[in-house]
Amino acid sequence: MMDDVERLLGGDQRTISRMMTLLEQRDPVAASVMRQIDRHTGRAYTIGITGPPGVGKSTIVDRLTELLRAQGSNVGIIAVDPNSPYSGGALLGDRIRMQRHYLDSGVFIRSVSTRGQAGGLPRIVKSLVRLLDAAGKDIILVETVGVGQSELGIMGVADTVLVALMPESGDTIQTLKAGVMEIADIFLVNKADREGANRLVAAITTMLQITPEAASWTPPVMLTRADRAEGLPELWDKIREHRSFLDTPALDAPAGESDAASRLEQRRGERRRQEFLEAVQEELNQRLNARLRDDPALIRTLEGIAAKEREPYSAALEFLDDSNLPDFGLIPGT
Amino acid sequence: MMDDVERLLGGDQRTISRMMTLLEQRDPVAASVMRQIDRHTGRAYTIGITGPPGVGKSTIVDRLTELLRAQGSNVGIIAVDPNSPYSGGALLGDRIRMQRHYLDSGVFIRSVSTRGQAGGLPRIVKSLVRLLDAAGKDIILVETVGVGQSELGIMGVADTVLVALMPESGDTIQTLKAGVMEIADIFLVNKADREGANRLVAAITTMLQITPEAASWTPPVMLTRADRAEGLPELWDKIREHRSFLDTPALDAPAGESDAASRLEQRRGERRRQEFLEAVQEELNQRLNARLRDDPALIRTLEGIAAKEREPYSAALEFLDDSNLPDFGLIPGT
Repeated sequence: MMDDVERLLGGDQRTISRMMTLLEQRDPVAASVMRQIDRHTGRAYTIGITGPPGVGKSTIVDRLTELLRAQGSNVGIIAVDPNSPYSGGALLGDRIRMQRHYLDSGVFIRSVSTRGQAGGLPRIVKSLVRLLDAAGKDIILVETVGVGQSELGIMGVADTVLVALMPESGDTIQTLKAGVMEIADIFLVNKADREGANRLVAAITTMLQITPEAASWTPPVMLTRADRAEGLPELWDKIREHRSFLDTPALDAPAGESDAASRLEQRRGERRRQEFLEAVQEELNQRLNARLRDDPALIRTLEGIAAKEREPYSAALEFLDDSNLPDFGLIPGT
Repeated sequence: MMDDVERLLGGDQRTISRMMTLLEQRDPVAASVMRQIDRHTGRAYTIGITGPPGVGKSTIVDRLTELLRAQGSNVGIIAVDPNSPYSGGALLGDRIRMQRHYLDSGVFIRSVSTRGQAGGLPRIVKSLVRLLDAAGKDIILVETVGVGQSELGIMGVADTVLVALMPESGDTIQTLKAGVMEIADIFLVNKADREGANRLVAAITTMLQITPEAASWTPPVMLTRADRAEGLPELWDKIREHRSFLDTPALDAPAGESDAASRLEQRRGERRRQEFLEAVQEELNQRLNARLRDDPALIRTLEGIAAKEREPYSAALEFLDDSNLPDFGLIPGT
């Protein structure tokens, strides 16, 4: 196990894969490894890329990876896909372009499914990012398909959030409405050769003017043609600019935190807090589901509820209060 | 309290409102009332209406209500809105058309916010529907804005699900993709006077042909012009047709249930099961949040996690196992 940690910190791709699988399986070993590698994290910079389907997110990721590799950076890629299984097999099929990167030991690619998730980013993505961080990746790219508000979760994992849009994307206005203005650190109008690109840039800029600025950073709007790698170097410059901005101390440092804490430190600290809470909630639900399979009394309760012998809401409160909660809490989650 | 139950069963609007507020506040009285009225539920028929923004859902609800009132039906309306506060004040502003119904004692209108929800339908909607059911409403209309997959939750509350679309709605294809085909019992192409209406009908019909049929019901595609109440009577006929279909026994009755159970009884039983589970999960999270405010040890843990003294995932598992779970479980949820 210790060897695992060493191999992981050494950046061994196969060990990274195996550890990610253990995390997905909620194997206790994974938690122990996460604990041991935590102090080796914090070096990597995480970039989130979201936007509606068809906007060219994977092409952008592909070209950005190409650019980062040329600079000698070590790259980790996590593709969050609504449909692909954890194995990512399905996703790979969609990503012929990425295949060359699979042969590159300086790039690690993993896909994560959101299947069965109510919305938002799967909690596990945060752990995967820290695994890649500890494994020596310099830059971690997290790609999520923006559907409705589900992409808001990207803020919970990325240091810089890119929101990709394209001209004539019918749902652009809806996308802008859906709270995306708040999450974007940089806007990216891809397929810039298409008609209406400049109109879209103008529309975003206008919306940015009427949106109350949270921080003293105004998201730039970049034009790209990722299929030809056009605009990518400029995009990368903007990302580095945003990173420098985050490295400056926040003026509105919350009480309890040192005023010297940079915006980046603040963002990451808040993220770690959130991850803990999500993990607790997820684990509680997993244990409840385990009990639903194993506990005859609970199974009977559910049958009674379906048969209208008991009312669902009051039965739920009674269940929680009557529950032998030590059992409830300690039932194996696997 | 007993008086409350009686007044509720008698259909007193002010009592319904007060009870709904108690439910929103998670007042223990609400659970007791829900338990007492449960056996008086099951008479009402619930119709869900979902679709992308701007498709005219509230006009459809308004006109359908008009039609149902003319038939002497008692109507309950629950408008699930991504932004409006529970009070619904904001929503009412958007619903000038509905105002006449507010003056009609045969119509009860309530709005529910999804704010702060990861996605899906707020669990409380299920309780509100049963309240209106017990209060003697014949038909309950639940309107939800379909954004991404969040509208899938409507299946958890409605007997018949209407999916409203319109010509030229840019995100139509995306909407159809987003798993909506599976939830629709009836498709409704509103603003049928617009160009492309027939093309949209054809597109939906085609997709229905390639979608594997779950049950032996094929969703009809209706053309409406809700602003002129055109197509509403035909829509209502189709809803009644679907209801008759649900009243027939399901061929694939799951083990443990009588083969005589109708599709409607099956749907509703499964829904009650789901409501119980959602209520348990929600309550667990509420209790966790309460503890986050009140428990100094937990607050310190979170600070340590933010400061990188502890790793979030392993700390979460330790928290659950170390937790004095009786306390955890029995901490007041309020």
